[in-house]
Amino acid sequence: MTELRNDRLLRALAREPVDATPIWIMRQAGRYLPEYGATRERAGSFLELCRTPELACEVTLQPVERFDLDAAIVFSDILTVPDAMGLGLYFVEGEGPRFERPVRTEADVEALREPDPGRDLGYVLETVRLARAGLAGRVPLIGFSGSPWTLAAYMVEGGGSQHFARVKAMAYDRPRVLEALLERLVAAVTAYLNAQVRAGAQALMLFDTWGGILDPHLFRRLSLEPLRRVVGGLVREHEGRRVPVIVFVKGGGQWLEALAETGCDALGLDWTVDIGEARRRVGDRVALQGNLDPCALYAEPARIREEARRVLEAYGPGSGHVFNLGHGIHPDTDPAHVAALVEAVHELSRPLHA
Amino acid sequence: MTELRNDRLLRALAREPVDATPIWIMRQAGRYLPEYGATRERAGSFLELCRTPELACEVTLQPVERFDLDAAIVFSDILTVPDAMGLGLYFVEGEGPRFERPVRTEADVEALREPDPGRDLGYVLETVRLARAGLAGRVPLIGFSGSPWTLAAYMVEGGGSQHFARVKAMAYDRPRVLEALLERLVAAVTAYLNAQVRAGAQALMLFDTWGGILDPHLFRRLSLEPLRRVVGGLVREHEGRRVPVIVFVKGGGQWLEALAETGCDALGLDWTVDIGEARRRVGDRVALQGNLDPCALYAEPARIREEARRVLEAYGPGSGHVFNLGHGIHPDTDPAHVAALVEAVHELSRPLHA
Repeated sequence: MTELRNDRLLRALAREPVDATPIWIMRQAGRYLPEYGATRERAGSFLELCRTPELACEVTLQPVERFDLDAAIVFSDILTVPDAMGLGLYFVEGEGPRFERPVRTEADVEALREPDPGRDLGYVLETVRLARAGLAGRVPLIGFSGSPWTLAAYMVEGGGSQHFARVKAMAYDRPRVLEALLERLVAAVTAYLNAQVRAGAQALMLFDTWGGILDPHLFRRLSLEPLRRVVGGLVREHEGRRVPVIVFVKGGGQWLEALAETGCDALGLDWTVDIGEARRRVGDRVALQGNLDPCALYAEPARIREEARRVLEAYGPGSGHVFNLGHGIHPDTDPAHVAALVEAVHELSRPLHA
Repeated sequence: MTELRNDRLLRALAREPVDATPIWIMRQAGRYLPEYGATRERAGSFLELCRTPELACEVTLQPVERFDLDAAIVFSDILTVPDAMGLGLYFVEGEGPRFERPVRTEADVEALREPDPGRDLGYVLETVRLARAGLAGRVPLIGFSGSPWTLAAYMVEGGGSQHFARVKAMAYDRPRVLEALLERLVAAVTAYLNAQVRAGAQALMLFDTWGGILDPHLFRRLSLEPLRRVVGGLVREHEGRRVPVIVFVKGGGQWLEALAETGCDALGLDWTVDIGEARRRVGDRVALQGNLDPCALYAEPARIREEARRVLEAYGPGSGHVFNLGHGIHPDTDPAHVAALVEAVHELSRPLHA
């Protein structure tokens, strides 16, 4: 394999010395970039873009070509796994994802296909291979999946939801059905992430978008425990190097200590957490990724620089910090503001690593 | 004034002994009740219902007549204050509240009317008077307002918003304009709440619906500090009895210690917080209100009972707990499930107060 020329991300995730704090941005390959819009138009739809490895690779590389980012993340959607399990994913313009066949009963869970990543998600693996080759060692490539709970929430609701009433009612009244679904998802997500590693992903991220809507009791049972089982089943070394795992629970700021015990290498933080306090809470157990409010990119570049400084200084000196937003970048963000952020993070963080 | 026959709420808020844990429910006067729907239909619209004291009083009393609740809360909307400041509140069916004249500039802030509660919000005060008389001492009446930050967020956005991008951009780039707006709101909210007390409200609640979307730095400046100033300006004794103040910051579980220092009597908790842990964190500084997930009311009554037991036991023995949901009740909740909850809370909590 080509030698990795910028390994700041992997070093920071291992809490090894770096020259500057690495930065990448959740949803960095996305709608705020005009070149993304052009490629998506050629694909015809978002789903076709995900399913066409050449085009998905193209958008994976776009942010790395435009900005001095320290990582790429494979362009895909978290709902490809439920789709591969037989739910029939489709998108309604302006309304988000939907499933033709939601999971509502025990029979629905039993009827789920156990996805074979090579056969059912081969287009993602091919995107990983192409992107890895296209990066040619410039920066590492991150693979990802939705967490079992987040996928289960979408699968039971049949798409997005305001209150996730159906899946919560299932959690209360039919816990065995939901647990059976989570069991299937633990296996599917683990196999999917390991296949991404074998295809060339050099770090992994688990997105638990909806862990934060649960009460602490349900969180432990439905989100945390399945996450722990997935992390425990992952390939952690490949090509002679550790494959670090980042776990991100949106709204999970109250549960950092428990999340640090899942076996992951790093925790993603949303912007409601003080990253310095988070560092004191998790000690040296894990690295931290985050956590500027995506809305800070609406500010003027001079102010963005001050906000970046605040986050960097809150984390403080030493390695173990991967700069990121606290959530995906908003589609109406000015790309020039992203450039200002990336420059500020690299420049302002150097003294913290001197 | 008529003697208060059920003072469990006021006693629990003062952390004085009670025979059972009191319960009321956020949005208990609302759409899940068929009788509410009938009254609203007579009013013609939600806003007309708010503005017609006889009808607003009627819906205030409905849940108390149907369930064995320990408090009533005046029926109104948090956006009546911005409306009284000249913004022109209206509702778009299925889309929520909107303002005809949002606040975007320094000139907009300067043009705001300083509302005189008696003149500009007299319909709310009249509802308070009628409801207090209608309750005739059965249970205490709670008055309320949106917090300065939450009102400011709506006023700048011009209504609800997904990311509150405009008001956050203002917080970053034009902090003086936003602070001037908050200054106006501190005065308006304080005067409004004090007028409710003089009209008969026996406890007060401040709803900070959007405090949880801020990073910790902005939270302290934009949400916490104005809350502290409002609480400091409130009439705390009336009719020879303390008027307790409950502060509820949705998504504020990480900031309970700071919120307990605002001078309030109690903190409202959403359902993502373990109420036992919250009690340990705030010690004996404040009482706690909450915090069952509103979605738990979708479960079967037997399960609702177990969830109520879990919350009660998490808080533990002794006074200082007001049972509530962690957020407003969902409109599609079965009223029979509310009855089951109220009964369970009273029955299961008695041993905790023996």
